[in-house]
Amino acid sequence: MFSPPRSRFLPSWVAGYGPTQARHDLIAGLVVVVMLVPQSLAYALLAGLPAEAGLYASMLPIVAYAAFGSSRTLAVGPVAVVSLMTASALAPLAVAGSPEYSQLALVLAALSGAILLLLGVLRLGVVANLLSHPVIAGFATGSALLIIIGQIKSLAGMPGAGHTALELAASLLTHLLDVNRAALALGGSALVLLILARRHAAASLRRLGVSAASADIGSKLAPVVVVIVATLITHLLALDTRYGIAVVGTIPRGLPELHWMLPALGTVEALIVPAAAIALVGFVESVSVGQSLAMRRQERIDPNRELLGLGAANVAAAVAGGLPVTGGFSRTVVNHAAGAQSPLAGVVAAVAMLLVVSTMSGAFTQLPICVLAATIIVPTSSLIDIGGLLKTWRYSRADGLAFALTAGGVLVAGVEVGIALGILLSLLSILWRASRPHIAIIGRVPGTEQFRNINRVAVDTLPHLLAMRVDENLFFGNVPAVEGELQRALQAQPAVTDVLLVMSSVSSIDMTALERLIELNQVLAASGRRLHFADIKGPVFDRLRHTELLEHLSGRVFRFTHEAFEAMGAAGVPHERTVVPAEA
Amino acid sequence: MFSPPRSRFLPSWVAGYGPTQARHDLIAGLVVVVMLVPQSLAYALLAGLPAEAGLYASMLPIVAYAAFGSSRTLAVGPVAVVSLMTASALAPLAVAGSPEYSQLALVLAALSGAILLLLGVLRLGVVANLLSHPVIAGFATGSALLIIIGQIKSLAGMPGAGHTALELAASLLTHLLDVNRAALALGGSALVLLILARRHAAASLRRLGVSAASADIGSKLAPVVVVIVATLITHLLALDTRYGIAVVGTIPRGLPELHWMLPALGTVEALIVPAAAIALVGFVESVSVGQSLAMRRQERIDPNRELLGLGAANVAAAVAGGLPVTGGFSRTVVNHAAGAQSPLAGVVAAVAMLLVVSTMSGAFTQLPICVLAATIIVPTSSLIDIGGLLKTWRYSRADGLAFALTAGGVLVAGVEVGIALGILLSLLSILWRASRPHIAIIGRVPGTEQFRNINRVAVDTLPHLLAMRVDENLFFGNVPAVEGELQRALQAQPAVTDVLLVMSSVSSIDMTALERLIELNQVLAASGRRLHFADIKGPVFDRLRHTELLEHLSGRVFRFTHEAFEAMGAAGVPHERTVVPAEA
Repeated sequence: MFSPPRSRFLPSWVAGYGPTQARHDLIAGLVVVVMLVPQSLAYALLAGLPAEAGLYASMLPIVAYAAFGSSRTLAVGPVAVVSLMTASALAPLAVAGSPEYSQLALVLAALSGAILLLLGVLRLGVVANLLSHPVIAGFATGSALLIIIGQIKSLAGMPGAGHTALELAASLLTHLLDVNRAALALGGSALVLLILARRHAAASLRRLGVSAASADIGSKLAPVVVVIVATLITHLLALDTRYGIAVVGTIPRGLPELHWMLPALGTVEALIVPAAAIALVGFVESVSVGQSLAMRRQERIDPNRELLGLGAANVAAAVAGGLPVTGGFSRTVVNHAAGAQSPLAGVVAAVAMLLVVSTMSGAFTQLPICVLAATIIVPTSSLIDIGGLLKTWRYSRADGLAFALTAGGVLVAGVEVGIALGILLSLLSILWRASRPHIAIIGRVPGTEQFRNINRVAVDTLPHLLAMRVDENLFFGNVPAVEGELQRALQAQPAVTDVLLVMSSVSSIDMTALERLIELNQVLAASGRRLHFADIKGPVFDRLRHTELLEHLSGRVFRFTHEAFEAMGAAGVPHERTVVPAEA
Repeated sequence: MFSPPRSRFLPSWVAGYGPTQARHDLIAGLVVVVMLVPQSLAYALLAGLPAEAGLYASMLPIVAYAAFGSSRTLAVGPVAVVSLMTASALAPLAVAGSPEYSQLALVLAALSGAILLLLGVLRLGVVANLLSHPVIAGFATGSALLIIIGQIKSLAGMPGAGHTALELAASLLTHLLDVNRAALALGGSALVLLILARRHAAASLRRLGVSAASADIGSKLAPVVVVIVATLITHLLALDTRYGIAVVGTIPRGLPELHWMLPALGTVEALIVPAAAIALVGFVESVSVGQSLAMRRQERIDPNRELLGLGAANVAAAVAGGLPVTGGFSRTVVNHAAGAQSPLAGVVAAVAMLLVVSTMSGAFTQLPICVLAATIIVPTSSLIDIGGLLKTWRYSRADGLAFALTAGGVLVAGVEVGIALGILLSLLSILWRASRPHIAIIGRVPGTEQFRNINRVAVDTLPHLLAMRVDENLFFGNVPAVEGELQRALQAQPAVTDVLLVMSSVSSIDMTALERLIELNQVLAASGRRLHFADIKGPVFDRLRHTELLEHLSGRVFRFTHEAFEAMGAAGVPHERTVVPAEA
């Protein structure tokens, strides 16, 4: 019934590709690169690396993703949250900005890439489902607050350091007198302009007659304009030498000379956990960006191919002298809005970026750091989702708590503890749900062959028969709850001699549940009770047939619940009619 | 409908307690203590502690458990696997046998106790369901092999150390020439006698006219006889001084003088993860021992009270100068078989142990270590469950793999990695199951109001309507699978204009699933399709009513699937009859 895949080897977009598509890809690639240049500089600095590392991470990884990934429009590169995680992972091991630090960033990218590739080869794309939305939103909110608090010092030209919200705030207070007023004035102006552009630029452009899509792209390019203007002002007024405003400084022209060497085992050990966290967060962020756009275009994202694409991109980032990368939200949206038709748009962007690096790197020398801080703060602030927290809390207390705890964990104890807490909360919530299956004691609806919950419907029961239906697959997480419910019911009805388990909703029984059922059969037999089954599904019965459970079952296996009631009521045992409790 | 609990404050056994019960408890307590003395010495040595620590851990903890636990017959004290975990946790921090090591063991017991108490107060007894049976059996098998390999050196009077199977094996090979032949002869004889006793003692005693229960208890006391005889031989022949056989040595008379101090923060940090692992393993082991016996007696184990009982026992072990403890299988079985009626049997055992410690400690001075090693090896070997592994593998590949990987992890990388691997495998298996819900595209059984899977039954469908039923609660783990299935179906049937989600099996929708449904509604609307719902359960509808999903739903909410088909087929659209595929 499903249409066959168009080709096993060629990506789906190849078939209909022509000059029109190529033109769209060319434009989209150029638009993206204009946006990507200041972003990649800023996020490299956020990661504690020299600015050029961001540029290097914005070429080869795009091409690597294009070769393996499944999204047509996802734009990979340095991203705020992943850069924050990079800084947090490397800070204990080396001094930010040092050659060792840069070398460790490459190891981190390579490890993240290797983990992603491994997961991809094992087809474990399902790990994207490891985190619930509230946990992801909580992580983003906490990380964004942490980034913004951390960038205030760059915006105001202050020294300071720290990796938790408390440390950063304390550092800000300590250095309050060290504010560079010129930096604060320039950075503050950039901040205000960027906020205004974000709020009003698109509408203003549209009022000027620009099409909606172009106005949207135009507003997203505001940071570029701000950066260019600020760099020109700094250059013309010599703000760096006269007022001590920190600037990006000399960026080496062309590609880096890399001295790759095998990292020491100790380094790998120290970085493997942060690398796994970066791989997971990057993957989840990337998949959710890619998926929401793909759905709009009636395309599909294949999580397993995304793992391969992102894994290849991170290995490429390590080879190219960059830092860990992932799919970025704003640049992907711009790529999409600018009309990208295929991953070739990314290749165009990579080539354009190469031209920028080899010819224009001198232009960034006097780009003020305080302005880059403003370009980080403004888009990052949109990740803070207090409204989402309130909405989540109103809909579900458990989900709201997961949101708040994850955000709080990131702020108080850092990104890695935060994400670990988030995963733990997500998994515990699965366990919690799975350990509380819906269980009903059932009876026969008078005059029918239908069976219903005795607490909801007035039904006939047999005094010596306890019929229980579990509405969930039986496995180690919920079989204790089933036993507990059965024990409670037997204590309430000591006259019961026959227990009937109705298996209509059970599609699988794991080894733990099987062993517990075998034990249950023995225990019931020891107290003179028989265990019966009814409505066992075909595949379940096939597996149970040759097990001790059915071979030594004290009772019988009935095809239908009705059959069991008929057989056990046959001896003329009077029916009892349950009365539905008032609250049901 | 359930009988009320007998009393909120008094344990259930108090009501019917009289002289008969007291006599049974007295006998059971004395039988248990005879068994407990050599066990507690041996398990303390296994943990790397002075032998007396085992005695101290077998008094106060029993009383503490009796006060808080829910099992009537569970006998707590040092246990092989937990002692192994203790040794593995402390080895990197101090030299086995040193005062610092003993002090750290107390911190470890206190931390385990605190974690258990915290879980108990939070009523998180559900953590007992964190581990599947195959993972528990794999952990036990791996640990038992590790213990036995580790005890060979004590049995043969060799030096050596190591914490993984490879290290231990390498150490054995290196020291092959250092075997103490006298120790090997004595320990080997003890080993052979214990194996024979285990296999034949109960049957022989029964042939001599002893009742089955007494014969069973008698066979379990064989180690005591072996230990006494071996100690006498060692003493009479002065084996320790003449052949250099290692003996337990002087045990301080009476209770220890303890110098408790608050542990350093660094110590707590280093021990918190092992303490959590010990708490979990101890709890799971204890609950499964207690539960299987309670079911035989028609009693119930309350996991939350077990947490409190074991937590109190471990805190008591720390206070008393012992080591981490939990419920032991063999001694609980003996306690039960000897007729224990209430936790007072444990109190009897504790008092008797106090008498032993204060009067008889001199008797252990010449107890040979090689014989204690034999008393560890024989019962531990019963934890190795190769038959269980094969049975599990035959029934379920996934469960078999979890069993083997956990056992292998313990052997190759140690107990902590092994248990972490086991938890991870258990949780991933939940995630794996939860992420693959059963989803059916349904149609109407001709001439009825019933709906069935189009792949199983010949049903009527409407060409523009896609009706999909998800047989699972919707949450972050499975909503991507639902979306994927829907996308596949829409690609196969591009003519569909109406999507109907049948919610008859959905009892809850978490925030992630809600957000995805809201997005799905928008995405479908963007491609000109409407989203409808049918059969939403009351409580689910109550929560959804005021959300964006229903407020902005492009389609309608129908009470029944039948209603939806009637409404959408009303415009005279012709039905299509599906043909059931041959393999269904």
